[in-house]
Amino acid sequence: MKYNSDEHIDDQMIKIEVSLDDMNPEFYGYLMEQLFKFGVNDVYIVQVIMKKNRPGQVLHVLCREEIREKVMDFIFQETTTLGIRYTPYTVHRLEREFIEVETEWGKCTVKIGKRAGKIVQFAPEYEDCMQLAKEHQVPLKWVYDQAKEKGYQWLNEQKLLE
Amino acid sequence: MKYNSDEHIDDQMIKIEVSLDDMNPEFYGYLMEQLFKFGVNDVYIVQVIMKKNRPGQVLHVLCREEIREKVMDFIFQETTTLGIRYTPYTVHRLEREFIEVETEWGKCTVKIGKRAGKIVQFAPEYEDCMQLAKEHQVPLKWVYDQAKEKGYQWLNEQKLLE
Amino acid sequence: MKYNSDEHIDDQMIKIEVSLDDMNPEFYGYLMEQLFKFGVNDVYIVQVIMKKNRPGQVLHVLCREEIREKVMDFIFQETTTLGIRYTPYTVHRLEREFIEVETEWGKCTVKIGKRAGKIVQFAPEYEDCMQLAKEHQVPLKWVYDQAKEKGYQWLNEQKLLE
Amino acid sequence: MKYNSDEHIDDQMIKIEVSLDDMNPEFYGYLMEQLFKFGVNDVYIVQVIMKKNRPGQVLHVLCREEIREKVMDFIFQETTTLGIRYTPYTVHRLEREFIEVETEWGKCTVKIGKRAGKIVQFAPEYEDCMQLAKEHQVPLKWVYDQAKEKGYQWLNEQKLLE
Amino acid sequence: MKYNSDEHIDDQMIKIEVSLDDMNPEFYGYLMEQLFKFGVNDVYIVQVIMKKNRPGQVLHVLCREEIREKVMDFIFQETTTLGIRYTPYTVHRLEREFIEVETEWGKCTVKIGKRAGKIVQFAPEYEDCMQLAKEHQVPLKWVYDQAKEKGYQWLNEQKLLE
Amino acid sequence: MKYNSDEHIDDQMIKIEVSLDDMNPEFYGYLMEQLFKFGVNDVYIVQVIMKKNRPGQVLHVLCREEIREKVMDFIFQETTTLGIRYTPYTVHRLEREFIEVETEWGKCTVKIGKRAGKIVQFAPEYEDCMQLAKEHQVPLKWVYDQAKEKGYQWLNEQKLLE
Repeated sequence: MKYNSDEHIDDQMIKIEVSLDDMNPEFYGYLMEQLFKFGVNDVYIVQVIMKKNRPGQVLHVLCREEIREKVMDFIFQETTTLGIRYTPYTVHRLEREFIEVETEWGKCTVKIGKRAGKIVQFAPEYEDCMQLAKEHQVPLKWVYDQAKEKGYQWLNEQKLLE
Repeated sequence: MKYNSDEHIDDQMIKIEVSLDDMNPEFYGYLMEQLFKFGVNDVYIVQVIMKKNRPGQVLHVLCREEIREKVMDFIFQETTTLGIRYTPYTVHRLEREFIEVETEWGKCTVKIGKRAGKIVQFAPEYEDCMQLAKEHQVPLKWVYDQAKEKGYQWLNEQKLLE
Repeated sequence: MKYNSDEHIDDQMIKIEVSLDDMNPEFYGYLMEQLFKFGVNDVYIVQVIMKKNRPGQVLHVLCREEIREKVMDFIFQETTTLGIRYTPYTVHRLEREFIEVETEWGKCTVKIGKRAGKIVQFAPEYEDCMQLAKEHQVPLKWVYDQAKEKGYQWLNEQKLLE
Repeated sequence: MKYNSDEHIDDQMIKIEVSLDDMNPEFYGYLMEQLFKFGVNDVYIVQVIMKKNRPGQVLHVLCREEIREKVMDFIFQETTTLGIRYTPYTVHRLEREFIEVETEWGKCTVKIGKRAGKIVQFAPEYEDCMQLAKEHQVPLKWVYDQAKEKGYQWLNEQKLLE
Repeated sequence: MKYNSDEHIDDQMIKIEVSLDDMNPEFYGYLMEQLFKFGVNDVYIVQVIMKKNRPGQVLHVLCREEIREKVMDFIFQETTTLGIRYTPYTVHRLEREFIEVETEWGKCTVKIGKRAGKIVQFAPEYEDCMQLAKEHQVPLKWVYDQAKEKGYQWLNEQKLLE
Repeated sequence: MKYNSDEHIDDQMIKIEVSLDDMNPEFYGYLMEQLFKFGVNDVYIVQVIMKKNRPGQVLHVLCREEIREKVMDFIFQETTTLGIRYTPYTVHRLEREFIEVETEWGKCTVKIGKRAGKIVQFAPEYEDCMQLAKEHQVPLKWVYDQAKEKGYQWLNEQKLLE
């Protein structure tokens, strides 16, 4: 497990931001993929308007302070930026639990999020649903919906939703 | 009045950010409407690019530290997120004052913003203009422009713009 | 005058679209500037999500059919694309007229748009307002608002707004 | 009923586009609301980058050819544009049907879409779900998910999903 | 080869557009991947603002008329839409040619685009560069730049750039 | 020189954010141009979705704490906002160096970025390339690519890339 699965507040998080206005857009796919390998928590790209009519990008990376240096080294190496900025964030994360449900096309993991012990989030795993959709040539949305439905049934049986 | 109408610097503000990549876009309208009822200062959505070609959203909520917990509870309840991040911001707010002007279609509030006692902002209230535009079947832009013009006349008479 | 200033419907317009996912964002400023020199009617950039997590751009150029070939040659030359697509559009353009108003900081052109002889649009020219704002060190918004106000006064005197 | 509820192909549709770079963003809410009253099929705003570093908007309106003139009149009246462009589109629309399901919080409409008589779409109505969520103070997502689940049960009972 | 590699003008292209305001953003990755398998020419997502404050998406698919029906069937099946619109486009495509260059880390394909027999485009293949970057643990940008440089050398030797 | 050209970490940076939902988009060009004159480090615009279906903008300005007050005064003066928020950021900036290369069309500056003495960034200056492209009527991309190539040759001769 890469993350603490209990509910917790993490005040050692860092948001890294990089303004990019001269990088080949093809590079972002590789960049995101590699950044997740470093164990960062989140990566996303905001398309912005920069000076001189440039359709720029701001890369946002959320990670723990302890890997910040390594992540920044990588960003300097792989992007075209001359400066990286960062600021601390606090993150409140829910308790996470995984259950497995049986759909008519096969097993699917469902991720559960709990706040103070109570279930508040509940979502089938995309990768599992996609695998089943591909194998059985059924619409992804049908698989996803059924996984969700089966999950609700399980929760009701366990009396976890009152 | 929900806010301090004098010019002030508020260093107890919090920016809450929530990365969402699996939520039905229909839910945002309700979410924003409800968040404003909690007394948050600002809410906006940034459309971003997340991993695996997902057109995600980052919800930004600006609020006072004292309501942060309540707001976060609501966000966990109404969105699909498993984590919420936040960081402190300082906000400099202008003195606000409201005057009423008379357009040819009826009364309209005009909001004034003052910096060190001097008027720097000056804008007709959208809701009033829209009401008059609807009732009198005139273009909203005509109503807005006239309300602004009448406001300037009042300011000139009061010798508030030198 | 580069354009027909009477109200008219132009059914010889072409919308050119170019999907770009590997071009340095710095190049767009030059590209737009040059495209306008060819006499195109409009140019804008839409930031989009392309395959493989690429923050791509779709360049949109609106021009008359008669200059399409020349414009496309230029786009092939200056961008990185291997294909350009286009489709016909019809454009309804209002009658345009320019008047000059006198603000307290100097003269400013105001553009008027007429539909069936009746004024429906009315806007100070940005470049003029900006020049006055720079020279007199006054907020651009003050200059713009006053130019608009003076324009309305002129229209009222001429009984052009009833 | 404002629309043909059988599956059909409509080759009399028009896409209207309006490039706006000098309009108060507050006006869009009113504009969209009013456009839907004219019976247009779809309205959306694309945020784009225009010349001179302007964060412009392109308003897209999809409507039937027979109301195009009326819609364009309204757009000239309510926006700041001097030109409106349009081009024909063909639309393939699914057969639509509405059923009503009973959730634990009350009734909710579910919209069904059929392709060649077979159900392919299936979605609870947002407005109904939102009403129930507000009245019963339950998360909107819970209501939406349950309405969907109940709908699936009904479809299964009717043997409409094989 | 899936496409005509000579320069040509294709007037049998179709742009398909789908407005989506209630679909899980996770589904787009799968959707795009599958659409390319059908042989469509381009797919991209435009993030837009829809009614009721919805951060919607417009999916754009460019394909040949002959596969339009199959593509639309798939879109109805995999997305949540009740209507798909389309309009014809003409596409001008350059002649394409592929050469292979030798970088210090290995071979890399370079794609060349020709207009009337003259080279106007010239770009290393992303997938090749990425492979080399991963294998040799060098920055992707270094690999890409060197592949481009080697390609220019080859072109100069062949006297293809005069 | 306006900035420290050695590699350094600057923990006195401030990110200023301004949410704007009622400003004429034409004003942003002037605003950005002027902000850079104050010596701010970066300015960019994020297009967002605000309440009531408003296509708003969030202006982001990165500057040193010591000019924050002056910059905020200017923003209050030139925009329509009633409140400006800010938060501290730390910025890690690379060592910067400029070399001059000789292309077949003339001289061009190339900017180099160094991390711990080692070259990691390397990019031709846009303004120089654009000037040469205009004067010699050659594609900007050709000029840019050649300037980069010449720079690499120089680095190799100096044995700066091992």
